[in-house]
Amino acid sequence: MTTAQTSALARAPASPLPAASPGPALSVDPQRLWASLMELACIGATDKGGVCRLALTDLDRQGRELFVRWVREAGCTVRVDGIGNLFARREGQDPSLPAVATGSHIDTQPTGGKFDGNYGVLAGLEVLRTLNDAGIRTVAPLEVCVWTNEEGSRFVPVMMGSGVYAGAFTLASVLEAVDRDGIRVGQALQAIGFAGAAPAAVAEGAPRFGAYFEAHIEQGPVLEDADIPLGVVTGALGQRWYDVVVTGQEAHAGPTPMTLRRDALQGATGLMQAVRGIALDEQPDGRGTVGYVQVHPNSRNVIPGRVTFTVDFRHGDDAGLSRMDRRLRDACAALEGAGGLAVAIEQTVYYPPARFAAPLVAAVREGARRMGLAHLDIVSGAGHDAVYVARTAPAAMIFVPCKDGISHNEIEDAKPEHLAAGANVLLHAMLDQAGIA
Amino acid sequence: MTTAQTSALARAPASPLPAASPGPALSVDPQRLWASLMELACIGATDKGGVCRLALTDLDRQGRELFVRWVREAGCTVRVDGIGNLFARREGQDPSLPAVATGSHIDTQPTGGKFDGNYGVLAGLEVLRTLNDAGIRTVAPLEVCVWTNEEGSRFVPVMMGSGVYAGAFTLASVLEAVDRDGIRVGQALQAIGFAGAAPAAVAEGAPRFGAYFEAHIEQGPVLEDADIPLGVVTGALGQRWYDVVVTGQEAHAGPTPMTLRRDALQGATGLMQAVRGIALDEQPDGRGTVGYVQVHPNSRNVIPGRVTFTVDFRHGDDAGLSRMDRRLRDACAALEGAGGLAVAIEQTVYYPPARFAAPLVAAVREGARRMGLAHLDIVSGAGHDAVYVARTAPAAMIFVPCKDGISHNEIEDAKPEHLAAGANVLLHAMLDQAGIA
Repeated sequence: MTTAQTSALARAPASPLPAASPGPALSVDPQRLWASLMELACIGATDKGGVCRLALTDLDRQGRELFVRWVREAGCTVRVDGIGNLFARREGQDPSLPAVATGSHIDTQPTGGKFDGNYGVLAGLEVLRTLNDAGIRTVAPLEVCVWTNEEGSRFVPVMMGSGVYAGAFTLASVLEAVDRDGIRVGQALQAIGFAGAAPAAVAEGAPRFGAYFEAHIEQGPVLEDADIPLGVVTGALGQRWYDVVVTGQEAHAGPTPMTLRRDALQGATGLMQAVRGIALDEQPDGRGTVGYVQVHPNSRNVIPGRVTFTVDFRHGDDAGLSRMDRRLRDACAALEGAGGLAVAIEQTVYYPPARFAAPLVAAVREGARRMGLAHLDIVSGAGHDAVYVARTAPAAMIFVPCKDGISHNEIEDAKPEHLAAGANVLLHAMLDQAGIA
Repeated sequence: MTTAQTSALARAPASPLPAASPGPALSVDPQRLWASLMELACIGATDKGGVCRLALTDLDRQGRELFVRWVREAGCTVRVDGIGNLFARREGQDPSLPAVATGSHIDTQPTGGKFDGNYGVLAGLEVLRTLNDAGIRTVAPLEVCVWTNEEGSRFVPVMMGSGVYAGAFTLASVLEAVDRDGIRVGQALQAIGFAGAAPAAVAEGAPRFGAYFEAHIEQGPVLEDADIPLGVVTGALGQRWYDVVVTGQEAHAGPTPMTLRRDALQGATGLMQAVRGIALDEQPDGRGTVGYVQVHPNSRNVIPGRVTFTVDFRHGDDAGLSRMDRRLRDACAALEGAGGLAVAIEQTVYYPPARFAAPLVAAVREGARRMGLAHLDIVSGAGHDAVYVARTAPAAMIFVPCKDGISHNEIEDAKPEHLAAGANVLLHAMLDQAGIA
């Protein structure tokens, strides 16, 4: 705890604040946070303990209405924008200041868990409730956001609400996106009653934040592996995704000697291994994954004539991503040059690496220190709403461990004490930015 | 042409035989053979020039009835056994002698061609027609067989009719085999009118042959690559098929560092390459193919948690097959031993290598020499009805080239002169074994 921050807390007028260091810092109610997570998880609960609450379904409506009830009970006003993003506002001493915001999403994967997204939203709610209990008023307003359709399971693109907010896509274009049944985003928003009137994009007048924090389960194994309860997220890896097609000659496995084969799969395996090797040469941040493979005709006694597979490259540094790109293309060209196989490669996705705002990252780190939490700087490997919001305002993220690093899975799990620790760090980081009135 | 064979031909009483060497040998009518192939190919013809005539369908019935009409017109009697195998018999001078037989199948793959199987049956028919035209009577009877359901596309197992004949499966068991619509083989045989009364299995009294020849397109590229019109088939490769499952840990491609992954696909690629390497070490006969791959969950940004793939090993020598088996199991154990992945391997199919009868192989080679055809000893990489029949009688096969080695495909193609050459060799090999009356 720095002297300056101690002073800020000490200035709080009506708060039953703990004494300054070495006494305990202001902290959230772990049981209340856990109970809210479990209550929200009942909406769309699956038999296996997970949640299926796809974006803009009736279950999403129920989840949103529960959130709205809770934040209104906490004294907030609620703003809904044109893409259905929700902003629960706790007014500050100076309403003209940009809000200090937090949030995430409450839509889930079809076989999702209780924590992905939901934790970031309810950690924000818990911050508000804690401040209410403590009678703390902030200088700047606070807002808790629910971003529409982060998962992209029903409608693409992913991170739709925050993407519209930040100008990655236009509102008009995403309102026309359709699900598998041909239902448009615009229709679905109307149907659940969350097609709001507020401008959705910063460029169209949506308010910019003074700061944006997002708490999230890590969705990876790093914190658990290091036995550290809190990750100070310094940025997000850039991504390049590719489709690769290797074409050879389909032929019978029996009558075709090894030397006369043009086996697309055998060629593809070398490229798949190259994807891993390229990523291993770019440690600690470089990642390379082949997640999808389609073999044609995929018959046990037919030499594959065509193999399609995907490549997912990630790196914290754009120059590193470019190196990976070049080496993959070189490997494809070398395979084709060896004769017998044709190789086509197409980049399908590019996200540049993101670096979070240094003062906010420092505020997160300081919050962890204040709570006496062991912490680790970490780079997000996945995309999050915060990555888009960071295009419009200073942003940072807080990670907490999840069991076995598993997410997007009904068995996704996290410890109540870790969830509370992350919410405490969020609380202090937001107070640091908003100031106590 | 050997002196003995010349004498045998010269003994034929009523035949307008060509003069002994150096005059032209007795030969089939290439146009008639081609016309018959094209006429049969109309039954089940596909838009792309192929044939879809699945076993025991109404199209199969039409094909069988056309065959029966043709062989009756050629003076044959027809026997139908309990699994629907057809035997067209041209009586010999000595009906007590075991028949010298030939044949193949007329069922096709769903997107099959005009020649696979059909050629062997119609080459046999063309031999009978040629002998009729030449007025040649043989000492031993001749038979042309149509084996039921060689392809196994509708009902498994493959090579059903010849397998029952040779005792690889019981008639009772295969009559209960069902297709995807739940229709049993027994029902389907009744429905098309080809549930015969003759015993189907040699063990149940079906007649053994004195010799069995089968002409077939190569279904591989060796003859075409060597520009040789005729393959003298000395045997068939043995086969071992496997299912391999590599299990790791499904995880997000973004948040999971390379060093904390248990990527089932990356592990599997090494095994897939080992399959090729093991086969390359067993040249010229060894073959190793991974034809089928299933990745779970097969999502582009998820590290694969499980990969299932097949292995198809073939070798001309059983000890070689055993070496391949041991090395594959060693590679699986080594991968599992390296930690992080579990590997399960199960052998699903074993066919021992087959060596065809030396005197019959010599008769085929001599037939090629007699016709002045360049020829090559070759081992069949695929299974054929002859491989089962060889368990009950001396057998051999004759291969002719097919375009680009492609088969089981609507674009399967073969040259009329090659088809005629194979039929001529069949003619002389059968005469050699049956003797001229």
